[in-house]
Amino acid sequence: MTTTRLPDKTVERLSQYRHLLMAYSNFGKQHIFSHELAGMLHITPVQVRRDIMLIGHTGTLRRGYDVRDLLKRISKIIDVDIGMKVVVVGVGLMGGAIINYFSGKRSKLTIVGAFDIDPEKVNRVYAGVPCYPADKLREIVRAEDIDIAILTVPPADAEAMTEKLVMAGIKGILNFTTIPLNVPEHVYLEEYNMISSLEKVAYFVKKQKINK
Amino acid sequence: MTTTRLPDKTVERLSQYRHLLMAYSNFGKQHIFSHELAGMLHITPVQVRRDIMLIGHTGTLRRGYDVRDLLKRISKIIDVDIGMKVVVVGVGLMGGAIINYFSGKRSKLTIVGAFDIDPEKVNRVYAGVPCYPADKLREIVRAEDIDIAILTVPPADAEAMTEKLVMAGIKGILNFTTIPLNVPEHVYLEEYNMISSLEKVAYFVKKQKINK
Repeated sequence: MTTTRLPDKTVERLSQYRHLLMAYSNFGKQHIFSHELAGMLHITPVQVRRDIMLIGHTGTLRRGYDVRDLLKRISKIIDVDIGMKVVVVGVGLMGGAIINYFSGKRSKLTIVGAFDIDPEKVNRVYAGVPCYPADKLREIVRAEDIDIAILTVPPADAEAMTEKLVMAGIKGILNFTTIPLNVPEHVYLEEYNMISSLEKVAYFVKKQKINK
Repeated sequence: MTTTRLPDKTVERLSQYRHLLMAYSNFGKQHIFSHELAGMLHITPVQVRRDIMLIGHTGTLRRGYDVRDLLKRISKIIDVDIGMKVVVVGVGLMGGAIINYFSGKRSKLTIVGAFDIDPEKVNRVYAGVPCYPADKLREIVRAEDIDIAILTVPPADAEAMTEKLVMAGIKGILNFTTIPLNVPEHVYLEEYNMISSLEKVAYFVKKQKINK
């Protein structure tokens, strides 16, 4: 297995290709062209070919990529071999929806627990995931060797909770709050911004209307 | 106002810059450097400067960008002048969380309604947003001049519902389902994939562990 560090955006695109390839594989499609993958993701076919070349895979001019082979190759590169444990921090509407969304979807990345400060939520089970009190965070993260946190607390609690996550030993955070966070260099922070996605759609709808 | 069509990814980044600038502006920060914006989004400062130059804005070497000026400039470029109406299609856990998440957040993009087939959900109001029966989709989209749909139906209903949305006159779709969709060229489709974001975090956490 390669140990070169791929660029952040490449990893994200590889994961997106895999997502599409899995869906196509389920539909029984055996081959796919770079322009097909590119079209679905609003990127260029050149970009797709470059990314896939980077992980040492090639297709043929006539038939494109073999869906199953490419799936295997991407998984080998980006998958976590040993499995990684994830917690959801903040079980509001979004936290609950995320637990439900991921439930049973990925075998290598497992949501093993949730945390909240609300006594009504603590000790309940959401889609198979137990909710612990927030003050047990450090203890459980260490005991269970948890690496990743999905942060869905209210904005006002985001900074303080991030500090607690870092202190507890969390190594990657997916931030669903609207607050920009500071983390030390050894922690990987990914901002997850739904509003930006909606604004992007709106921008192109607007352009389409103007050009009519 | 410029009518040049910016690249998709540029629009997305501009929206992300704005999101960070708004947060910093609320904290009372008046200036920001390209490397600060770049660091939060895992991109290069060169990329940030290029994007911002593209919209005709410049900073100074010593102080960086003026937060308020840049905010205004970006908004002028990417905002929808007249406002655009959005509906959420499928009021499951995720649909409900999305309605709540967007509630009151953006003035120019407003969620004006939701659709579902479940009689228990229809005619209820979620965070101020009325839920209509799915068979009224075409009628309401046309009467209310709705442009954008956020698709959060179960995977099995995704394709059929997308066809209905296109027929009803929807011009942009933000797809939260795990199904890749086909839409005609005049409809802008944006895939929204949470699993890819989590996989990206996991990849970098893994690399960090290996290199230790």
